[in-house]
Amino acid sequence: MIQQLDLMRQLHRSAGGRIVLLVMDGLGGMPMQAGGPTELEAAHSPNMDRLAMEGCLGQIVSVAPGVSPGSGPAHLALFGFDPLVFQIGRGVLEATGVGLQIGPGDVAARGNFCTLDRQGRIRDRRAGRIPSEQAAPLVDRLADIQVAGVEFTVRHVREYRFALRCRGADLNAAIDDTDPQTTGASPLPARPLAPEAERTAAHFNEWIRQAQGLLADEPQANGLTLRGFSTDPDLPKYDDIYGVRAVCLAQYPMYKGVSQLVGMQIHEFEGGDPAVQFAALQPIWEQFDFFFLHVKPTDSRGEDGDFAGKAKVIETVDAALPGLLQLAPDVLAITGDHSTPAALRTHSWHPVPLLIWAPGRVRADAETTFGERACARGGLGTLRGVDLMPLLMAHADRLEKYGA
Amino acid sequence: MIQQLDLMRQLHRSAGGRIVLLVMDGLGGMPMQAGGPTELEAAHSPNMDRLAMEGCLGQIVSVAPGVSPGSGPAHLALFGFDPLVFQIGRGVLEATGVGLQIGPGDVAARGNFCTLDRQGRIRDRRAGRIPSEQAAPLVDRLADIQVAGVEFTVRHVREYRFALRCRGADLNAAIDDTDPQTTGASPLPARPLAPEAERTAAHFNEWIRQAQGLLADEPQANGLTLRGFSTDPDLPKYDDIYGVRAVCLAQYPMYKGVSQLVGMQIHEFEGGDPAVQFAALQPIWEQFDFFFLHVKPTDSRGEDGDFAGKAKVIETVDAALPGLLQLAPDVLAITGDHSTPAALRTHSWHPVPLLIWAPGRVRADAETTFGERACARGGLGTLRGVDLMPLLMAHADRLEKYGA
Repeated sequence: MIQQLDLMRQLHRSAGGRIVLLVMDGLGGMPMQAGGPTELEAAHSPNMDRLAMEGCLGQIVSVAPGVSPGSGPAHLALFGFDPLVFQIGRGVLEATGVGLQIGPGDVAARGNFCTLDRQGRIRDRRAGRIPSEQAAPLVDRLADIQVAGVEFTVRHVREYRFALRCRGADLNAAIDDTDPQTTGASPLPARPLAPEAERTAAHFNEWIRQAQGLLADEPQANGLTLRGFSTDPDLPKYDDIYGVRAVCLAQYPMYKGVSQLVGMQIHEFEGGDPAVQFAALQPIWEQFDFFFLHVKPTDSRGEDGDFAGKAKVIETVDAALPGLLQLAPDVLAITGDHSTPAALRTHSWHPVPLLIWAPGRVRADAETTFGERACARGGLGTLRGVDLMPLLMAHADRLEKYGA
Repeated sequence: MIQQLDLMRQLHRSAGGRIVLLVMDGLGGMPMQAGGPTELEAAHSPNMDRLAMEGCLGQIVSVAPGVSPGSGPAHLALFGFDPLVFQIGRGVLEATGVGLQIGPGDVAARGNFCTLDRQGRIRDRRAGRIPSEQAAPLVDRLADIQVAGVEFTVRHVREYRFALRCRGADLNAAIDDTDPQTTGASPLPARPLAPEAERTAAHFNEWIRQAQGLLADEPQANGLTLRGFSTDPDLPKYDDIYGVRAVCLAQYPMYKGVSQLVGMQIHEFEGGDPAVQFAALQPIWEQFDFFFLHVKPTDSRGEDGDFAGKAKVIETVDAALPGLLQLAPDVLAITGDHSTPAALRTHSWHPVPLLIWAPGRVRADAETTFGERACARGGLGTLRGVDLMPLLMAHADRLEKYGA
């Protein structure tokens, strides 16, 4: 059987239209009371409604029915990689996201500063969420640690979080988290989950020992935990699979991380305003074929349970859309990576609204607004996350016919 | 790749809401004439319509598009087991359904009494459908049969049907049916389909020889046939996969059988009235997390070609629903195992209507009645049978997030 990625590799053309994939994180929502609108339905979004009228709607089941995905697996799916097949460790995602390249054989982990009491037990798993300005110098201090036989590199992520990379020969990432996941317990040592990982765990434990010494006198960040030990997943890349030059415009490290792992360039821009983000496309428009734009606050407001706030974020994106449309993308898809209904305050399994707009190539359906109920009736039907990329490629006239 | 059952094993929580799965056998229907309603659409079902308004609809393709499943595979699918992967023999289903446990190494077969003419040819394959009162004493007579080296156990099912279990060392179920599937021909011997089954077939043939002797003077049930030779499929169990204590309330042996094979308890209740069936939940409500309720007559009326009768069964279930709802299940799913349109008088491949109701956790769609056309537009989309269990688990808040 030809797998989907091989099919794309086989069918993709070297030229075609420009594709914009606009992901509003956690876009899918729910009514707050029976019969009410969802966040997206409540938002005043005339631009999206016009695109819905001209385009075609559907809904995406990110990973599988009933499964509430994390953002990592959900984005992998949107990029065409089945997250039940391709799995990326949290450490690799975090490291890649702050520009710490994870090469073959490297082992990455995500680190958290924490606050320990006098007995060495965790009092605060996030060190009082110390601000980045205080945490960054501590990370600099840890950069001096030397462990014989390997090379450690540490980089600050934000607030109490950092990424750690171990580079050397014969490393193995089968190591359990040192975070006991509770307060009142001491951080655990790095424990190997397989004999092959014993030496690597010992390297990390030596690093932890030295780090504890360097942090001992800190008032808040006097301890640390490591988790998500993982190694380069060696994913196939966008240029190989899809034949496109792809770029990511995202603010949060994890989204940059997963984009980089599938071969996207990262284009930095200032600030979280969608209008600024869309304007940042203009100077690079000719350099790329595929633009992944990530908007985070829809998810954050959903997790806060802030229905009106989430609708407001959608309205801000909608208001900025003309700036994106004036670049005349050939295909614009608007969707989410998963649902984060304010009513549930967490990621959920509910399907995610999808809008595909592609002048002259999309088959318009009967729907005229962008919302969950309209998407459930839309012409694209209910799709899996991995179905999206082939559809975008087709709408951009980037796929050959399959067979004669 | 992570398979679905492993994913459920990995993600399930130890606690969560109570789930009721109400299966009306053969629920899906068809109009009797163009433009008319289906059985479900014609039925007056105000309670289901209210649940449809508050909940979310979809349609289930039990096994695969175009495939009309038997009730065994269709139920396996609803329980989350792909029936193209997991296969259960009819003998095992029948035996398990009447409480005859099939352990590892046992071989089970389903038996039919038949009427033979003087030349030993079958005149009636079901022995004139003799009533249970007449058949049960004949089964008792067969219980005395002794075959050297193995232990046979026989149990009456209903009317002309019984289940037979052979227990011993090195048995093998690769044996062909003895039923010639036609009248005018003699019952066939048990024929091994593989060399490893030769000894087992000989045991069954010795049992058949003795049974024929004991039945020879019967006016109607003077012969028998055996089929569905099969052995324990050793299916994973509900508590392991889903972490729920599951119970089945069904009248017919086969449904109890398949439920037991996936680890459900069987709760017996008197009579086929849905109100009685729903009332039987009350005393065991605290003991279980998952309740499978099976209603048979929708299928029977469909097979009779009785459109009005099938609609009437649906109305009876609808009228009894308040008794179920007063138990306040967290999730109620109403669906069928397959379609049995009265217009076709047989199982069909048409998608089966699905309704999921789960206060506070279901995303309501725009549909307001429970029927095939509404379900085709519903917010859950078109699902495979195996997709149902993960959805029910999610709606009951029984699944962790997948990945970070």
